[in-house]
Amino acid sequence: MTMTARIQPAIVGASGYSGFEVTKLLLRHGQVKAPLLLAREDADHGKPFAEFYPQLNGNGTHSLEPFSWELLRARGVDVLFLATPHEVSREWAPEAAQRGIRVIDLSGAWRLREEQHRAVYGFRDQNDGFGARAVYGLPELHRPRIADAEVVANPGCYATSCILGLAPLVMNEVLELEHGVVCDAKSGVSGAGKQPTARTHFVEVAENFSAYSVFNHRHTGEIVEQLHLQDSQLTFTPHLLPIARGILSTIYVRLRAPMSEAEVLALFRDFYAESIFVRVFTPPRLPEVHYSTHTNYCDIGFALAPDRRRLIVVSCLDNLLKGASGQAVQNMNLMFGFAEQEALA
Amino acid sequence: MTMTARIQPAIVGASGYSGFEVTKLLLRHGQVKAPLLLAREDADHGKPFAEFYPQLNGNGTHSLEPFSWELLRARGVDVLFLATPHEVSREWAPEAAQRGIRVIDLSGAWRLREEQHRAVYGFRDQNDGFGARAVYGLPELHRPRIADAEVVANPGCYATSCILGLAPLVMNEVLELEHGVVCDAKSGVSGAGKQPTARTHFVEVAENFSAYSVFNHRHTGEIVEQLHLQDSQLTFTPHLLPIARGILSTIYVRLRAPMSEAEVLALFRDFYAESIFVRVFTPPRLPEVHYSTHTNYCDIGFALAPDRRRLIVVSCLDNLLKGASGQAVQNMNLMFGFAEQEALA
Amino acid sequence: MTMTARIQPAIVGASGYSGFEVTKLLLRHGQVKAPLLLAREDADHGKPFAEFYPQLNGNGTHSLEPFSWELLRARGVDVLFLATPHEVSREWAPEAAQRGIRVIDLSGAWRLREEQHRAVYGFRDQNDGFGARAVYGLPELHRPRIADAEVVANPGCYATSCILGLAPLVMNEVLELEHGVVCDAKSGVSGAGKQPTARTHFVEVAENFSAYSVFNHRHTGEIVEQLHLQDSQLTFTPHLLPIARGILSTIYVRLRAPMSEAEVLALFRDFYAESIFVRVFTPPRLPEVHYSTHTNYCDIGFALAPDRRRLIVVSCLDNLLKGASGQAVQNMNLMFGFAEQEALA
Amino acid sequence: MTMTARIQPAIVGASGYSGFEVTKLLLRHGQVKAPLLLAREDADHGKPFAEFYPQLNGNGTHSLEPFSWELLRARGVDVLFLATPHEVSREWAPEAAQRGIRVIDLSGAWRLREEQHRAVYGFRDQNDGFGARAVYGLPELHRPRIADAEVVANPGCYATSCILGLAPLVMNEVLELEHGVVCDAKSGVSGAGKQPTARTHFVEVAENFSAYSVFNHRHTGEIVEQLHLQDSQLTFTPHLLPIARGILSTIYVRLRAPMSEAEVLALFRDFYAESIFVRVFTPPRLPEVHYSTHTNYCDIGFALAPDRRRLIVVSCLDNLLKGASGQAVQNMNLMFGFAEQEALA
Repeated sequence: MTMTARIQPAIVGASGYSGFEVTKLLLRHGQVKAPLLLAREDADHGKPFAEFYPQLNGNGTHSLEPFSWELLRARGVDVLFLATPHEVSREWAPEAAQRGIRVIDLSGAWRLREEQHRAVYGFRDQNDGFGARAVYGLPELHRPRIADAEVVANPGCYATSCILGLAPLVMNEVLELEHGVVCDAKSGVSGAGKQPTARTHFVEVAENFSAYSVFNHRHTGEIVEQLHLQDSQLTFTPHLLPIARGILSTIYVRLRAPMSEAEVLALFRDFYAESIFVRVFTPPRLPEVHYSTHTNYCDIGFALAPDRRRLIVVSCLDNLLKGASGQAVQNMNLMFGFAEQEALA
Repeated sequence: MTMTARIQPAIVGASGYSGFEVTKLLLRHGQVKAPLLLAREDADHGKPFAEFYPQLNGNGTHSLEPFSWELLRARGVDVLFLATPHEVSREWAPEAAQRGIRVIDLSGAWRLREEQHRAVYGFRDQNDGFGARAVYGLPELHRPRIADAEVVANPGCYATSCILGLAPLVMNEVLELEHGVVCDAKSGVSGAGKQPTARTHFVEVAENFSAYSVFNHRHTGEIVEQLHLQDSQLTFTPHLLPIARGILSTIYVRLRAPMSEAEVLALFRDFYAESIFVRVFTPPRLPEVHYSTHTNYCDIGFALAPDRRRLIVVSCLDNLLKGASGQAVQNMNLMFGFAEQEALA
Repeated sequence: MTMTARIQPAIVGASGYSGFEVTKLLLRHGQVKAPLLLAREDADHGKPFAEFYPQLNGNGTHSLEPFSWELLRARGVDVLFLATPHEVSREWAPEAAQRGIRVIDLSGAWRLREEQHRAVYGFRDQNDGFGARAVYGLPELHRPRIADAEVVANPGCYATSCILGLAPLVMNEVLELEHGVVCDAKSGVSGAGKQPTARTHFVEVAENFSAYSVFNHRHTGEIVEQLHLQDSQLTFTPHLLPIARGILSTIYVRLRAPMSEAEVLALFRDFYAESIFVRVFTPPRLPEVHYSTHTNYCDIGFALAPDRRRLIVVSCLDNLLKGASGQAVQNMNLMFGFAEQEALA
Repeated sequence: MTMTARIQPAIVGASGYSGFEVTKLLLRHGQVKAPLLLAREDADHGKPFAEFYPQLNGNGTHSLEPFSWELLRARGVDVLFLATPHEVSREWAPEAAQRGIRVIDLSGAWRLREEQHRAVYGFRDQNDGFGARAVYGLPELHRPRIADAEVVANPGCYATSCILGLAPLVMNEVLELEHGVVCDAKSGVSGAGKQPTARTHFVEVAENFSAYSVFNHRHTGEIVEQLHLQDSQLTFTPHLLPIARGILSTIYVRLRAPMSEAEVLALFRDFYAESIFVRVFTPPRLPEVHYSTHTNYCDIGFALAPDRRRLIVVSCLDNLLKGASGQAVQNMNLMFGFAEQEALA
């Protein structure tokens, strides 16, 4: 291990779920200084961070400081994590880039290329020129480009799960895509964020289960774009699970020609041979939410029908780690030449 | 069964948890007309009730109507259930009484007699004269007075659980009260109401457990007053359980003189001989939350220490039924001469 | 209401989850005598039923009696509910029929017609002649035949959910069946029965979610047979939800020709016009598990893709009621000419 | 950091919950070799450990090996973790000691000194002479003796929580002990172990809550002995929470003389000044289960009544970490001179 100077990270939105996870990961990262924690809300300025997250008691005395570009410069911030609403990221990422600060944006602001997909966020501005400079931060697909990126658009949690479950099949052209792809995805409640709503009230969620945003979810565009599908080829249905964290996606595809179990397994294993955070399961074992919770792994398993054409892929991850903050730190590791698994394993 | 004309109930606040439970009970009550559902919020007027509670689909087409005294008169309302904030109940209950409409108030507005207890609600008005006309609606203690009441102050959920667990012991003067009484009470989240807050967010509640309002909970005064205790004799600690509904109170007392298990059991059995909604368990079986959920029962069990002086009482009920709406309907049954268990068993 | 003599039901397996639910429903049924509760295990004989289910305390003093055909005859049993393993039902149903006792069997013993589907139960006997006398007890499809049935094979919980979500589409021949049907189904844990296993341990289930029996679940044959599909046309994937009760099935189909939302809605509404226990939701509202829990309803909703060819049906029910015991009592009501909703609404 | 030779640990019972946690901690411990995983059951021999715990996939290929003393010697085992039934620990700990292998026993075999407390385990043997050589492994009370111990009796989860909440008060003699101490303790289900039982079935636990083993729990003796109480001075009531992991104990005591909040706080802070795994909360903030889950902390907070005599202490920990496996590794760190927090923070 060569000795490098530690870099200075900053986080905006550390009091939210994904910002908090980034914070915890950075606090145990050997190559970074203690992260600068920034708040957009005046009311939160100066508050000890342990007031938001008492579980950090005794891990140092971090306070939230008011966000300002001057402060970032004064502290020599090298990388800025934006755990902010997409409208804010839309505004701040270009400004950070202009000031020479690399950005890892956890919102949906810079993930989408095509107009019809970006429409779901209702962006009014047109700084598409800048958009082209953002790299979609899925290391398993874009490792080299992430290393050089000014701005990384950290992928959506559902999107990460579905793309990783499908990429080896799509890229190897073994799917009958015209038949369509069904992603029946289920997520824990932390994916909905920390803001209390009728939908996240314990009494509404516990002992319940429901589909939502059917034919209408923002992550659909990410899956379509990253896999080069046509919109009509993907049916993506999110559901709300009565658990705090974890995503399991059950993915239904049809193979162009019959394959054996061993062939499918080899295809996945080869594709992810260099990807330490994807674990491919040998049939008949399938991933379960528990296995990847509190880790940065995406677990992938599959089952093949007796007709050897119908294939079901099960893809699991922790929506707050591989689906958000763990992946963000994984991206940072790539951007700054650290070991990919630093702070993550 | 004598044939009586059906009475007309009305409910303000039917879209909240306890209002909804009152509504469901009244819809299956053989002696009342379909309840008039009233909303205080303009936004809710005219909305089909099944929009708030789709589980009522197909059980009739009830809509929320704007509250007005004229409407109550026009529809000939006999009894008004107030599932409203205590400030609203404080204002409306006297007005209803003046208009000859009997009131069952589910808020804390009229439960407390003594100034130091009423202080926790911060009432600014002084209409204490009216307060004296409200009867504390715990049928097991005040059945005859409830039958004649103009206004029934429906008890708090925690208070019902603790008072019923203690009353036989206190009334029979077997407790060493100067030793103090500890009520360690645990409640499901529906007790906190339907309004989403940081405290009721699924991610904060699931896999969590916590004490709150220690030495400072509003229901303390009810227990003290109903059992004629001194404030310093009661230690009441509420906790938040990661369940939707149900309360279990573990109550610690010391007997003046050693008693046998059989004597304690007889004491409870005798006290509740006429109370169909209290079930006394034979040791060593103790109540569990499951047993009384979705019923109007308060289940009571106990364990006696080898020294026959230390006694633990376990009292369980469904906070939305015996702890709120079921008890409200039980009170209505008493007020209008119906069978006490009508719609409740 | 015409006055009819009450019939005498008996239940074997009342201490299991579905047997207990049948018991509770029969206890509040106006047309039947108190059910005879029978145990196969010697150890359980004579035990008060409230010892298994303390929540029944105070609802009478029922005891489990040892099963014998003599006892059934002595008590004049009219209908026998079998909440027993399928091997037992396989043996006892023919014997009951021979003795003139009508049977409602909650196991999988008599549901399947075709050899390749029955194989999953591994039946060794060959009394197929008798099998032809059993009627598949899904009232929405077979109401008249159930009324006359000697033996009703009460459907599986998953199967009920999927068949009811698909039947209007299949029977009206609007589906492109050669494209295949995907049923992604999720069930609460009570569907796995009361026997404790590694799979039902709280620590393994809470905060977890998993697929199981992929391409290999016993209920697949029921769906295929009832809808007259070919085996290769159905992909059915069960998942285990961290909830006690409830099933939600997300069903993916392709229409032969584009349809409007109104046309699809009309098709469902017409099909279930006479079926009081199916509630069809108007888009965009979709059923959620909460809405049908503790009821005998099957709730059905749908969403249509912009291309008007891809259709998603969401079908929800309580696996212990419409998915088991409620449907069993609904079948009994049809068999004995009672109102279909008696004890169920 | 001085370079020391790594020690060789072995674990019997690694497939259970606490054994698994010890395994995970040792796998990330910088001073120990990969632990030897031993199984008592023939059926488990040779099985890859990831078959029991697929979440370990990719973290190496550990297999369970059959337990034998020869194997321990051949591998040069320095410390043996026993996550075994107490009967087994009772037999094996003396044998290990005789062979010069230090033991950390997670069972209740060696925790108790007094005959009336040891009776609850029903030990038939009388090797009390050996018992005197076992040190009660609560570092906050016995750090120096643990460092030298041959055999460490790792404390019970409930006991750790209650003793740490009470020790500063008892040791400083500020309590009116004759008034009695009430520990109302609530635990997650993993405390009951991995064996599936009727009590741990998801359907019985979810949405439920119950007291158990009232006046009769095995951990009572540990609390009494460690705090030098008389049996009649402690009332300890365990309850089962519908969560996987975590304990919260609400402890009720009376002070000999009135104290201020600041005095109580100082007393706790001083007592635990050197104990990095106890976090004392400043009032009014109280610990919640979430704060210590997945950590080795015991969090302690308190609330003082207006009379400044009644004191409530809330003590929280993760029953699998500070309540079992984390504490076991903390003990190992002390025994072998490693940093106390190694692998734990």
